[in-house]
Amino acid sequence: MSTEFRIVRQEPLTQFCQKVFEKMGVPPRDAATTTEVLVLADLRGIDSHGVARLRRYYTGLKNGVMVSKPVIQTVHETPLTALLDGGAALGQVAGKQGMNLAIEKAKKNGLGFVAVRNSNHYGIAGYYSLMALKEDLIGIALTNSDCYVVPTFGRDVLLGTNPISVTVPALKERPFVLDMSTAVATLGKLEVYNRMGKKLPHGWATDEKGLFCDDAGRVLNNIRSKAGGGLLPLGGEGEEFGGHKGYGLDLLVDIFCGVLPGLAYLNLLYPKTPDGKPLPSLVGHFFGAMRIDAFRPAEDFKKDMDNMIRRLKSSNKAQGQDRIYVHGEKEFELEEKYRREGIPLYHKVYEDLKAIGEEVGVPFTL
Amino acid sequence: MSTEFRIVRQEPLTQFCQKVFEKMGVPPRDAATTTEVLVLADLRGIDSHGVARLRRYYTGLKNGVMVSKPVIQTVHETPLTALLDGGAALGQVAGKQGMNLAIEKAKKNGLGFVAVRNSNHYGIAGYYSLMALKEDLIGIALTNSDCYVVPTFGRDVLLGTNPISVTVPALKERPFVLDMSTAVATLGKLEVYNRMGKKLPHGWATDEKGLFCDDAGRVLNNIRSKAGGGLLPLGGEGEEFGGHKGYGLDLLVDIFCGVLPGLAYLNLLYPKTPDGKPLPSLVGHFFGAMRIDAFRPAEDFKKDMDNMIRRLKSSNKAQGQDRIYVHGEKEFELEEKYRREGIPLYHKVYEDLKAIGEEVGVPFTL
Repeated sequence: MSTEFRIVRQEPLTQFCQKVFEKMGVPPRDAATTTEVLVLADLRGIDSHGVARLRRYYTGLKNGVMVSKPVIQTVHETPLTALLDGGAALGQVAGKQGMNLAIEKAKKNGLGFVAVRNSNHYGIAGYYSLMALKEDLIGIALTNSDCYVVPTFGRDVLLGTNPISVTVPALKERPFVLDMSTAVATLGKLEVYNRMGKKLPHGWATDEKGLFCDDAGRVLNNIRSKAGGGLLPLGGEGEEFGGHKGYGLDLLVDIFCGVLPGLAYLNLLYPKTPDGKPLPSLVGHFFGAMRIDAFRPAEDFKKDMDNMIRRLKSSNKAQGQDRIYVHGEKEFELEEKYRREGIPLYHKVYEDLKAIGEEVGVPFTL
Repeated sequence: MSTEFRIVRQEPLTQFCQKVFEKMGVPPRDAATTTEVLVLADLRGIDSHGVARLRRYYTGLKNGVMVSKPVIQTVHETPLTALLDGGAALGQVAGKQGMNLAIEKAKKNGLGFVAVRNSNHYGIAGYYSLMALKEDLIGIALTNSDCYVVPTFGRDVLLGTNPISVTVPALKERPFVLDMSTAVATLGKLEVYNRMGKKLPHGWATDEKGLFCDDAGRVLNNIRSKAGGGLLPLGGEGEEFGGHKGYGLDLLVDIFCGVLPGLAYLNLLYPKTPDGKPLPSLVGHFFGAMRIDAFRPAEDFKKDMDNMIRRLKSSNKAQGQDRIYVHGEKEFELEEKYRREGIPLYHKVYEDLKAIGEEVGVPFTL
């Protein structure tokens, strides 16, 4: 482990990323937001969505796919809902504005739902649903994403790993934080299997014929070249294990994030010029916030959440298991540990951050 | 097939069930609602939730678990939300009232969300989400249910197969109707495997130790006696195939249907007297309705839905497949066929209906 990782404190990591974004022309407040979302992912152990992606944003800002000083516009607004156009902003900037608006509406009127179009990759969905927590609201965050997933019985990657995140407050227990992709596995996991030369479990991915494939490298290449095949939806191949359910959830996220905002969905996302240069990604998000006391007193509700969580955790374990988790729990524990002890970064990620620092002219002193 | 099934027309089947409910003291309007939900399930090919369950309701009404003339009360109400107490009504009666209220609020104000507590099994969730369609709304229906499902790493059945249904209108294409349990398989499927002496696929269910079990009969017995083990959540055993995601969705449904209404959740549902007699089931539901034009013109949205559906359906198929489905499509096709040609009922179901007719004194002339 010591050779593979480098432990980094969150404060200097935050300062470094913030400065990189500022150098790329992002206003300080937006640079802080974007950095906060990335570092929170690392703190919560979701390293696939953390600072490892800094180059993606750096490149996006450099080639104009992401706009450093976007004009975010309100396309339509009611007391409960809104549709925003993100102006090709960094997803985190458009996302935070969207979720803040949903929260504001919910605080005032009980419910708030905001759709955002013309945005970009926004990091972990959990960041936004967690924002609702401070206000004792139930928070919902969905986003569509680049196409890596095939529909049930299909061969083309037409869907993203389109995550669903819902945060529900509890009283003394930790909140319930669902933050799940609707695919059976992530591209990041396939990369790990590929590096280790391990065969993929049955039902994770398909080949160019649309049939199960255990070769991670082949699947990754096919996804990149759109040669056919890709990740399978939650539930795997066909219908035997409920793959059509995962496909349905994946599609549902795209309906709310792509069709409802009305700009791009399926493989209309991430368009390119005829000569293959990337254009703004047209990613969309959907945010919701709900006041608990629109139904019954929040305090009573949160007591019941505690009770539910305790009943689950104290129930009998399967043989060989010593713990039942509630969603978000593992991530909260990692966050406490990493805030205390520092964040482990892959050497490769560490070196890449250093290189970005040199390219953009930000001293790298981690 | 001809020996296993009996073809029955929907009109006399509807009349028969309606009369049975009326004989049990259910007012004509409520008898019609309950019957309509059951027969629609059969028409849409979801026979596990159709008239095969008439005995369950008949018995429930007889032993007082379901109340024929319930007092359904508004516990809390805002212009956008409500909490209803179903008074141990037939789930269909409390459910329809709840969804109607959500629709009414959405029509007036853009959004409507209604939680219902103290209800009973309400049949297919899709019936309620489909109600929103007539008003050009997006419809959402969730319900918790009797505990057949174990949490990831757990051994006790603490969760129902808790379905999620969302209906989204399209223009010329059929609407998107997601109606899925959050378990990998249903009890009904296990019963089929048991009858056929077939081994269960890996990841469907666990034994009393909480480990995978391919013996359907043993799993069914264990679920009934709460001896340990049960159905697995969507994604199967452990976390390798995303079982924790299915578990999270299952729990989420129980948070909205059990914790939010605030009466019963997990295995607090379906309580019994100390000597094992069933008490009212305390099932809860959650309904939502959303106006599309709260975000953008409904007509434009529906055109994009058509486009999304067509792009999916015309995309390349996996080898050996000739069709990609959109959710609800199979059921709409069956519905057209069964309305035209009659509904196939298992002989066992047919005989059971006949027996109920004799017990309750309703002529059976199907």
